Amino acid sequence: MTDTVLSSATREVVIGFDRPFVIIGERINPTGRKILAAEMSAGDFSRVEADARAQVEAGAHMLDVNAGIPLADEPAILAKAIQLVQSITDVPLSIDSSIVAALEAGLAVYKGKALVNSVTGEEERLESVLPLIKKYGAAVVAISNDETGISEDPDVRFEVAKRIVHRARDHGIPVSDIVVDPLVMPIGAINRAAVQVMRLLHRLKTELKVNTTCGASNISFGLPRRNGINAAFLTMAIGSGMTSAITNPLHPEVVEAVLGADVMMGHDPDCARWIRKFREPPPTGAAGEAGRGRREGGHRRRPTPAA
Amino acid sequence: MTDTVLSSATREVVIGFDRPFVIIGERINPTGRKILAAEMSAGDFSRVEADARAQVEAGAHMLDVNAGIPLADEPAILAKAIQLVQSITDVPLSIDSSIVAALEAGLAVYKGKALVNSVTGEEERLESVLPLIKKYGAAVVAISNDETGISEDPDVRFEVAKRIVHRARDHGIPVSDIVVDPLVMPIGAINRAAVQVMRLLHRLKTELKVNTTCGASNISFGLPRRNGINAAFLTMAIGSGMTSAITNPLHPEVVEAVLGADVMMGHDPDCARWIRKFREPPPTGAAGEAGRGRREGGHRRRPTPAA
Repeated sequence: MTDTVLSSATREVVIGFDRPFVIIGERINPTGRKILAAEMSAGDFSRVEADARAQVEAGAHMLDVNAGIPLADEPAILAKAIQLVQSITDVPLSIDSSIVAALEAGLAVYKGKALVNSVTGEEERLESVLPLIKKYGAAVVAISNDETGISEDPDVRFEVAKRIVHRARDHGIPVSDIVVDPLVMPIGAINRAAVQVMRLLHRLKTELKVNTTCGASNISFGLPRRNGINAAFLTMAIGSGMTSAITNPLHPEVVEAVLGADVMMGHDPDCARWIRKFREPPPTGAAGEAGRGRREGGHRRRPTPAA
Repeated sequence: MTDTVLSSATREVVIGFDRPFVIIGERINPTGRKILAAEMSAGDFSRVEADARAQVEAGAHMLDVNAGIPLADEPAILAKAIQLVQSITDVPLSIDSSIVAALEAGLAVYKGKALVNSVTGEEERLESVLPLIKKYGAAVVAISNDETGISEDPDVRFEVAKRIVHRARDHGIPVSDIVVDPLVMPIGAINRAAVQVMRLLHRLKTELKVNTTCGASNISFGLPRRNGINAAFLTMAIGSGMTSAITNPLHPEVVEAVLGADVMMGHDPDCARWIRKFREPPPTGAAGEAGRGRREGGHRRRPTPAA
């Protein structure tokens, strides 16, 4: 099945139907985080650095980096944030902006093969972002809305996704370099939001054979105990074929749901990752940590090229 | 879609594709519980009573009652346990035994429409249990194995389930009174156990249009943090069409997973049950509990017949 390969300078992550689910950490994003926005504008990236380290430590396989700060020089800030994050972690990044110039500034400094977040089915966006993806050999998140907005009909969203995939092909970008975002709406407002997404995920997997991602935390907007809703959504969506998500690995419920779903899908051979993460600590004095860290799940470290 | 209606003397529970998931409490079962077995043999049902109350309080919509104690008078003990449980709770019961005489003893004293657990595809079992189901107007759990054992091929298990449904029809039992158990194996031993069950659940829903249940806790046998695995399994299985499970509601993770999955499936209108269960307590002094208990999810109380 379709494999989407992303990389940093030294590490490769593959998003695919037969592989462990890929968690893309969502935290490096100033939207709704006033302090972070002020610090990034002022050139202080200490919180970005802390967020990067914490998310990788918590289980993120990739990190999304967004610098969307009103009136700030977003291309410069995004490029700086990407360089910083790449200097302290080796996970591949998702370069996230609604401004095409910022995406290009990020791509220009990025080491490896990035995931660009995002293109939509809007004509202007398609024709400005897809050439960049081709130029830099990146992969791209394709959001299934267009000039007419976001349809509540999953079949309409499927057609938008299909149109993006076809247009990308016209630009010489293979379907394996497209990761479709089916668009997750808050279930507190739209009770059939998850049912719609599950149907769409199934069609995207079986018909378009394309990998998928989403902003998973949207589903629980406005509800109490959001992590419980996020966990239910991620588990069910993985069962429906979703292969990655932009979400918050600092919530243990989210990471546990993903690891559990990997076990269910048969993507954790012998439940080795689950057992390593959750086994009881050995009695004091026993050398029980010997096996820790032996395996990296489905995420393989790429051999560093000879300098 | 197919509705399986169960009842006690005063309450009805409906298992169905368009309804909230039904949790059948598994605790009243002496298998592996030595103290409970000894007490039940000696006529002490205090623990049965406590288990019944605790499970209903924790969120069970039905209770499974099993009295499988080696060398004991199982029919008499099962009948007594059922009478006791029916005297202290109003949820419908699942009468659980591998001994046909015990099933009949339970059915003879049961008030309402019981779920009988279980029949298999084995010829002798079919022809001894199905006449009882017809005689007492009960519903029955149909386990998808037969004389050849439990196939690892979900399509073979589907054929066994289909055969039971057809044989039941020959006995005058409608498909709505069959609840198929696809058989859940420990995923620590069989890594594709869940994938097999998901495929089978999908076929049972779309082709045979039959309700389903399973002993959900089996999935996590031998693994650490079993509740996390159980939660992942229940969530994904509900997404694949499972409509009930025999499981342990005393684990909050299990109940939370089921409530979250109901939200995902669009079976919790306006997320009302979720919000009621998990909302933050109101500030001291506020009359915030006024709305509590107004709704009973999809499980409706049947009007008590005029005496």
